[in-house]
Amino acid sequence: MRIVVIGATGTIGKAVVAALQDRHEVVKVGNRGGDYQVDIADSGSIRALFEKIGRFDALVSAAGKVHFGDFAELTEKEVEIGLRNKLMGQVNLVLIGRNYINDGGSFTLTSGVLSHDPILYGTSASLVNGALEAFARSAAIELDRGLRINVVSPGVLVESLDVFGEYFRGHEPVPASRVANAYVKSVEGRLTGRVFHVL
Amino acid sequence: MRIVVIGATGTIGKAVVAALQDRHEVVKVGNRGGDYQVDIADSGSIRALFEKIGRFDALVSAAGKVHFGDFAELTEKEVEIGLRNKLMGQVNLVLIGRNYINDGGSFTLTSGVLSHDPILYGTSASLVNGALEAFARSAAIELDRGLRINVVSPGVLVESLDVFGEYFRGHEPVPASRVANAYVKSVEGRLTGRVFHVL
Repeated sequence: MRIVVIGATGTIGKAVVAALQDRHEVVKVGNRGGDYQVDIADSGSIRALFEKIGRFDALVSAAGKVHFGDFAELTEKEVEIGLRNKLMGQVNLVLIGRNYINDGGSFTLTSGVLSHDPILYGTSASLVNGALEAFARSAAIELDRGLRINVVSPGVLVESLDVFGEYFRGHEPVPASRVANAYVKSVEGRLTGRVFHVL
Repeated sequence: MRIVVIGATGTIGKAVVAALQDRHEVVKVGNRGGDYQVDIADSGSIRALFEKIGRFDALVSAAGKVHFGDFAELTEKEVEIGLRNKLMGQVNLVLIGRNYINDGGSFTLTSGVLSHDPILYGTSASLVNGALEAFARSAAIELDRGLRINVVSPGVLVESLDVFGEYFRGHEPVPASRVANAYVKSVEGRLTGRVFHVL
């Protein structure tokens, strides 16, 4: 398969590329690095990306910014960061990418544990993750041409504990290599409309 | 209690007002009707509303537009309708309303069955409903001053079958009076961070 990995230079993305590249042609897309670059918050940038890449069989997205911060001071503008980037960025990868994906292809997006297991400072991320999971459950029954869509919902990564550990006290950290398995299961399996929890 | 009902002139809103008005002071807010008017897609309009209403003890929102339509033709702009209106409209009622709500008060928002039980044409609504439910689960643990937040997730209404019935074939319709009970439970009970499914 020809598999596009968005966020290929990130912690999860690198593990996904490592897990797929021996069996598949992997197209690595980063914000600045990778074979191609994209700003997923800009649908024009997404369109330009797919024009350059051409047809593919699967898209994995492990990309998307979201605001973390005290709810007491959370503003509409801060919530918008996650809506523009992690939420609509990934939704637009599907809405636009479906014009370039081959029949029977799959989309695999990334949400996260906060959709159902919230933490202080995480409300904006929870909202975005809940939206992505519901989007995939529904898009799965609406997609045609045998297209599939799933979401991987990882817990806090072992590799990210130095940055996020203090927010996720008591959460069981998961290694990126184990998270990568869920993307492989989504891409190479036949499930659709599922949330793969990696906890 | 002094209870603000947003969407008070709608099908659910009217039933909520009927269920609460004998025991409480209900402030009815509509898009055009009601005691006060608001456009929840406009945070300036929400701010102006709360300045006029003043302090209150509970807010119920049964308001919010979302786009229904074939996923094959769904555009970013159509998804934005629900993000601006039903999602951020209700999120902003909380972010702004918390400056006007009394200690120990409650927010009760409205999602819908599509977050977990999707239908054709409903992906945009599913996304918004999933976001609202995850938002409330998380905001509940972040809110201070004893404030609570819940979401009511109704199935298709008996009263709306003439408009929505063809989208919801096989779904068990629920009368608005039964849906209203869930809002009463949220407002007069002590639960927080919950999704009240009325199916």
